[in-house]
Amino acid sequence: MASFDPFDSISPLDYRYYGRNKDLFTKIQPFLSETAAVQYQAKVEVALAKVLAQRGICTKKIADEIAQAAQHVKPEEVYAEEDRIKHNIRALVNCIRKNVSDEAKPYVHFSTTSHDIICSADAARFKDFIVQSLIPELNQLNHTLIALSRREKATLQIGRTHGQHAEPITFGFAMAQYVARIGHKIQDISVSAKDLRGKIAGAVGGYNALSLFVNDPEAFEKEVLLELGIPPSPISTQVVAAEYLTDAIHDVVSCFGILANLADDLRHLQRSEIAEVGESFGKEQVGSSTMPHKRNPISFENVKSLWKATMPRMMTVYLDQISEHQRDLTNSASSRFVPEILATLLIAANRMKKAIEKLSVDRSSLQHNFDQSKDMIAAEPLYLLLAAHHHPDAHEKVRQVTLIAQQKKRPFQDLALADKELAPYLKKFSKQQLDLVKHPEKYVGICAQKTEKICKQWD
Amino acid sequence: MASFDPFDSISPLDYRYYGRNKDLFTKIQPFLSETAAVQYQAKVEVALAKVLAQRGICTKKIADEIAQAAQHVKPEEVYAEEDRIKHNIRALVNCIRKNVSDEAKPYVHFSTTSHDIICSADAARFKDFIVQSLIPELNQLNHTLIALSRREKATLQIGRTHGQHAEPITFGFAMAQYVARIGHKIQDISVSAKDLRGKIAGAVGGYNALSLFVNDPEAFEKEVLLELGIPPSPISTQVVAAEYLTDAIHDVVSCFGILANLADDLRHLQRSEIAEVGESFGKEQVGSSTMPHKRNPISFENVKSLWKATMPRMMTVYLDQISEHQRDLTNSASSRFVPEILATLLIAANRMKKAIEKLSVDRSSLQHNFDQSKDMIAAEPLYLLLAAHHHPDAHEKVRQVTLIAQQKKRPFQDLALADKELAPYLKKFSKQQLDLVKHPEKYVGICAQKTEKICKQWD
Amino acid sequence: MASFDPFDSISPLDYRYYGRNKDLFTKIQPFLSETAAVQYQAKVEVALAKVLAQRGICTKKIADEIAQAAQHVKPEEVYAEEDRIKHNIRALVNCIRKNVSDEAKPYVHFSTTSHDIICSADAARFKDFIVQSLIPELNQLNHTLIALSRREKATLQIGRTHGQHAEPITFGFAMAQYVARIGHKIQDISVSAKDLRGKIAGAVGGYNALSLFVNDPEAFEKEVLLELGIPPSPISTQVVAAEYLTDAIHDVVSCFGILANLADDLRHLQRSEIAEVGESFGKEQVGSSTMPHKRNPISFENVKSLWKATMPRMMTVYLDQISEHQRDLTNSASSRFVPEILATLLIAANRMKKAIEKLSVDRSSLQHNFDQSKDMIAAEPLYLLLAAHHHPDAHEKVRQVTLIAQQKKRPFQDLALADKELAPYLKKFSKQQLDLVKHPEKYVGICAQKTEKICKQWD
Amino acid sequence: MASFDPFDSISPLDYRYYGRNKDLFTKIQPFLSETAAVQYQAKVEVALAKVLAQRGICTKKIADEIAQAAQHVKPEEVYAEEDRIKHNIRALVNCIRKNVSDEAKPYVHFSTTSHDIICSADAARFKDFIVQSLIPELNQLNHTLIALSRREKATLQIGRTHGQHAEPITFGFAMAQYVARIGHKIQDISVSAKDLRGKIAGAVGGYNALSLFVNDPEAFEKEVLLELGIPPSPISTQVVAAEYLTDAIHDVVSCFGILANLADDLRHLQRSEIAEVGESFGKEQVGSSTMPHKRNPISFENVKSLWKATMPRMMTVYLDQISEHQRDLTNSASSRFVPEILATLLIAANRMKKAIEKLSVDRSSLQHNFDQSKDMIAAEPLYLLLAAHHHPDAHEKVRQVTLIAQQKKRPFQDLALADKELAPYLKKFSKQQLDLVKHPEKYVGICAQKTEKICKQWD
Repeated sequence: MASFDPFDSISPLDYRYYGRNKDLFTKIQPFLSETAAVQYQAKVEVALAKVLAQRGICTKKIADEIAQAAQHVKPEEVYAEEDRIKHNIRALVNCIRKNVSDEAKPYVHFSTTSHDIICSADAARFKDFIVQSLIPELNQLNHTLIALSRREKATLQIGRTHGQHAEPITFGFAMAQYVARIGHKIQDISVSAKDLRGKIAGAVGGYNALSLFVNDPEAFEKEVLLELGIPPSPISTQVVAAEYLTDAIHDVVSCFGILANLADDLRHLQRSEIAEVGESFGKEQVGSSTMPHKRNPISFENVKSLWKATMPRMMTVYLDQISEHQRDLTNSASSRFVPEILATLLIAANRMKKAIEKLSVDRSSLQHNFDQSKDMIAAEPLYLLLAAHHHPDAHEKVRQVTLIAQQKKRPFQDLALADKELAPYLKKFSKQQLDLVKHPEKYVGICAQKTEKICKQWD
Repeated sequence: MASFDPFDSISPLDYRYYGRNKDLFTKIQPFLSETAAVQYQAKVEVALAKVLAQRGICTKKIADEIAQAAQHVKPEEVYAEEDRIKHNIRALVNCIRKNVSDEAKPYVHFSTTSHDIICSADAARFKDFIVQSLIPELNQLNHTLIALSRREKATLQIGRTHGQHAEPITFGFAMAQYVARIGHKIQDISVSAKDLRGKIAGAVGGYNALSLFVNDPEAFEKEVLLELGIPPSPISTQVVAAEYLTDAIHDVVSCFGILANLADDLRHLQRSEIAEVGESFGKEQVGSSTMPHKRNPISFENVKSLWKATMPRMMTVYLDQISEHQRDLTNSASSRFVPEILATLLIAANRMKKAIEKLSVDRSSLQHNFDQSKDMIAAEPLYLLLAAHHHPDAHEKVRQVTLIAQQKKRPFQDLALADKELAPYLKKFSKQQLDLVKHPEKYVGICAQKTEKICKQWD
Repeated sequence: MASFDPFDSISPLDYRYYGRNKDLFTKIQPFLSETAAVQYQAKVEVALAKVLAQRGICTKKIADEIAQAAQHVKPEEVYAEEDRIKHNIRALVNCIRKNVSDEAKPYVHFSTTSHDIICSADAARFKDFIVQSLIPELNQLNHTLIALSRREKATLQIGRTHGQHAEPITFGFAMAQYVARIGHKIQDISVSAKDLRGKIAGAVGGYNALSLFVNDPEAFEKEVLLELGIPPSPISTQVVAAEYLTDAIHDVVSCFGILANLADDLRHLQRSEIAEVGESFGKEQVGSSTMPHKRNPISFENVKSLWKATMPRMMTVYLDQISEHQRDLTNSASSRFVPEILATLLIAANRMKKAIEKLSVDRSSLQHNFDQSKDMIAAEPLYLLLAAHHHPDAHEKVRQVTLIAQQKKRPFQDLALADKELAPYLKKFSKQQLDLVKHPEKYVGICAQKTEKICKQWD
Repeated sequence: MASFDPFDSISPLDYRYYGRNKDLFTKIQPFLSETAAVQYQAKVEVALAKVLAQRGICTKKIADEIAQAAQHVKPEEVYAEEDRIKHNIRALVNCIRKNVSDEAKPYVHFSTTSHDIICSADAARFKDFIVQSLIPELNQLNHTLIALSRREKATLQIGRTHGQHAEPITFGFAMAQYVARIGHKIQDISVSAKDLRGKIAGAVGGYNALSLFVNDPEAFEKEVLLELGIPPSPISTQVVAAEYLTDAIHDVVSCFGILANLADDLRHLQRSEIAEVGESFGKEQVGSSTMPHKRNPISFENVKSLWKATMPRMMTVYLDQISEHQRDLTNSASSRFVPEILATLLIAANRMKKAIEKLSVDRSSLQHNFDQSKDMIAAEPLYLLLAAHHHPDAHEKVRQVTLIAQQKKRPFQDLALADKELAPYLKKFSKQQLDLVKHPEKYVGICAQKTEKICKQWD
């Protein structure tokens, strides 16, 4: 294993997205690598020993010995021991035990079951990862989006529904949608992460073993988990009830969906014919191996693609809600893939953040695209104002004028303002109302104010 | 359509699970049928007119006219109109308009877009369904489980991990796991249902049209939605941000997973060799078309199967998080399937409730199964007590004795208590500790107390 | 039930997509409705009785009696009987039995188990649906595409990769991709449909009961299934091995993915800025309830959306591959949803066919979009021809020229043809080669020929 | 990267299941690692150069130079170059180019696009992996199952439906179901693997560039791919039509489902109460960190769990069927995870094979479990024989007797054979027929013959 070539990996996370990036490595490895898993499991053993000493079940010296030994456990020795005895937590226990005195040996893992250690270690490391790495990354992304939204809060953009030009908005307003959605999800992730639960309740959750030694096993459990910064599950089988983790991963997957939506939007706005935004392009960067002129939205494509690889894995998490009786182990392997979901969102958020930071916004394209539909955009306020001035069938009338405008390739506004049937109604329009029909670029509602409001809320 | 034979349906919900069951029909139809969808959309139009009148944009008489006309709209006329003009909300609007005075016509759907109506109607009816039908049903199920848990809180059961006999628990404790998990999820569903959002923000979410007529469109929106009992989305495109619904459906799907787990547990406890529980069996009921003696766990199988049909649909909901720009309509059909997810959980909860109400618990089987492993169960407390009395390698020693016991087919306890190496340690055991090794049925920790605590919390 | 209002359905298939469309109803109801399910089950009972008579186990008169009675069984009476006895196939058997003589009664369902009937009926009706309805519909769609491809085989279109203009193709060539993909999948669906298997092998698949009466139960099984037009499973438990159905549904879902891809392509080509194609629009059709000028790609959106609702259901089919021991019934409900997958592909194919039939292709937009990138397109052939004429670093050189062209907003070709470093190489170009650099619209490879070849293959 | 600690990986495949197992490493690394990806891409460049030389477009010396340089390309240098220029295939091309003469440089990657290389390399390596590693592994598993089936073809087992005792079979017959299912799927996988396609058709699939240099670009493409042992796609965009890979992965996922079913069956047969089979247990192996007596079915749990982690990924493959226009790159990351699906099936098959090889079958448990239901099993043949002897309502009559037998806790056969109403019918039974009612262990149909037939077919 010492000579394992990283390119012999088969996970693209390991050989490409995570393993080769120092910044991401620093944010992910301490929590989600297998090294981290072993370290957190050792931490649970240390917390247990500490509370055993506090309760007078063992001496403080013993607890210190265990803490000392646990700190130096290496994954390779645990794996070597597991190869021998085919049990991963017993392997960890053996590795700790061999470095403590005979007197201390019995108190390593005392009265607990493997999944007391595994469940609690996973809850603690996932929570720590989310709080210390993922949420800061998502917050950075959101601040980048907030800056962009504010800067472009008054930049006119044609709103698009069904991919068709609809009514005007501002580009900042379009981006502020994501500020609100991501901001909201960051809150949810934070709440569900802090609600990840551990357990020290024994092999079937009844505190059977622990009850031999303490009168208040639930209090004991709470004390141990407090050392790890996590609350206990209100009731457990051999494992913590699945929903705490399921909820947290849902929030992560749902947040990923928002990033995928943003990626799609920006990809399409970068289309050759639209060209309202562009990913910046390095001086040495090659767009295509054969088409030297290409400037591809590869970061947005990458984010969308990571989402496609990750989202379906929520099904694995839902499947793992089912564990027979006091638990079966049919999540032995599947639960090991959960850290990949967490890591991939961070990788995608980081990529998105960098792409947004350097996003070029082409205001002339924005104006150009708006101008294409300028005339037709007047249709909506016109129909509404006609209705408000008591035209009995304004929507249908305006629809007919748009059809004629298209057939005759004439400006809709000209036709409408010259229409004899409409004349008596148009007379009643205020100057401001007529102005809006003539200048549909002013028909942007409260886009700029709303953008500012949302940005302020999440800043 | 008038002559549509229900058995010509292709959805098993329509021809079998929902459509033929009066109780379920009453709980589901008013919210999740297409009739209900049209009625709720009409309600949004009524709410809109009411607030227009409150604001003085139209008269109260007009609002009343619209309310009157909207109340009597029938889905068949809306669909007939849609067949003509190919637009469902404009069809609804036309159906209302044709029954109001010319003066009132312009104020039907005034300044709103289709998805103001659809998003708000869906949020309102899904919330109403969850609050009025789904949560009461889940609560009834949970109360049935609470009664069962309490009744069986001291009933000895062998705990099972990996399908293997592990340590003793009580049957009530096993059931209390589900009380806590379902109770927790009911709370989550309630929270996410009440956070479903509507919108009255126009075609691209910028309040473009509304701003022509009111100075405070956000306040206007809030007033309309208040009529429907739902809050507004903090910012919208043409549609409400997807995550409010995504979160609610996640909670529903996750709750379904708990029921599936319970169903699996009970199916397996009903296995011929285990036989600790049984679904009650009607006098006329046929177990098998060819094996007259069969008593099959068909309710539990049905619940598991409904979950298998439903859970993957969460992926559709995740896919629908993505909508391009100010929205595309690639959720036009997929979003119409969302009510099926809600309905199916109610159907499954109802089925589970009825099965649990009549669940027969066979205490003699429970005892019999426990007795099979009685001897071996003593292994854990023995190893722990040896460790606590400073045996340096208690786990390994006890493991060896179990192997010998299995090879020699001798009671483990006899071998252990007679073991020479163990003798000096056993001498140090208290009478109570020795008693536990000899009577492992007492080795149930705090199962009964925990069961009571959980039941009290969720009652 | 007689008074069931179709709008009280909750499945959008029943109240909207299938139930209200006479053409689709005729294609789907005879195979996939619950009425059809009961009829096909009755057919299996008839086939069984016929072979029993052929074997002399009962008389021909008895078989005729059973056939007569089975023909007239109505789903409502079967369901009423099932309500009483809680077993669907025994209910069917009772309904047949009550209309035959006492002498014939024992031979109804003789020696078979429920799933002999259900598995065989499902295999037969799914096969019949695919062969008689689905494949003809898919073929019609493909012929529509073939006609479109041929018509537009020489129509210049700018090829797009990453949403960016790349190299020229023809629009017919773009469509021919789908001709080939759909054609290929039609073949696969046909093969897997004809490989759907039935069984007459009894309650645990060992022919236990049948062996009491016939010496060659496998031959007997084959004869019964021959009456239904399907082959037997090579070995069965209570049910047919799952993979025959799983494979067929995979082919259906995979074909659906191709339609979704086509729908996405056409949606995007209909974008306001691209406008190369358009869904035709009825005279009375309303594009938007509030924006009268909108022309939305609603058919393509609908097809994509139906795919989003359907594709994840493949996971249910994969989950149903697992059935414990000689079978559990946790597919009782989930398998009832399988017909929806089949029906929905037909609905989508029908919708797509109609949209393609009336698709408007805007050649001026196609030309306009091509012209936007005309200059840059010359980059690839230039770099390749330079390389072929021994320029040592043609790709990098051309890339630099494109950057300069963009910065200076000068035509790439002018810069390139005037480049001093390139001059010695350009001199070596043949007239035809230089012509291609100057007229990149000719740089379409063999698009037209390939289109014709593919269309010919699948016509 | 040189110092990358394997335990810093986050993929459990890399740090646990694949990376640490020499046997699996040897079977997987040469095809599915990133090293292999680069090597196969280099092979495509070599094949291209070779055919260019055969066609006289470059010299043989140049092709040899390129082959020599390509052979020595290392992933780390390709990645270093990609870091610089942000394009992976151009990076590979540069790495080859820098080790050939100036004269040869232009012919590296000549006239092709990145995805000519990537698609073809992936098709070739996936095919090679399946043919050289996966199918042999699956065949070994199936031979192990065949041996088990044959050995136990006459071993009586109670068949179970709904987890309930049903009718007798043999254990070999139960296992032969998997022989047939796996055998069938191995054939499918082999067919779909050999139908994986490559392409050398350029940036938009129209052979635009290639047509500058050869008259028959389709023949040229075929020649290049022949070097790699794969056929060309009949038509391509920038990429090969998705369905070839989608079909192959479906077959892999579907095969995995069969293994998951087998794992579940064996897990349950190992339950403490059933105990018909057992995973063998190493002498040093620890069953539980706290319950020394446990013998857990960890291999079967692991296989089921790997399936749960893998199966949902099929959704990613279905999502990747959609690529806009001549392709978007939203499969850039997701397609990199496809090799994990292939690798994981091999890992699971290997684990299953080893567990089956050492599976202990407990014939006394099998007999004991059968004996539990021995009496009731007679119900089916009795009812059928009664019916055949013209009892008018045999099923209902026998059902009633079973209920009485259960209530009175009397043997069913005693009650039935003594029943006065049945007496006249029983008199007509042949000796053999009566014998079967009395000895239901003989009621196993043709289980043994069928087992032998299936084993012979797949051996």
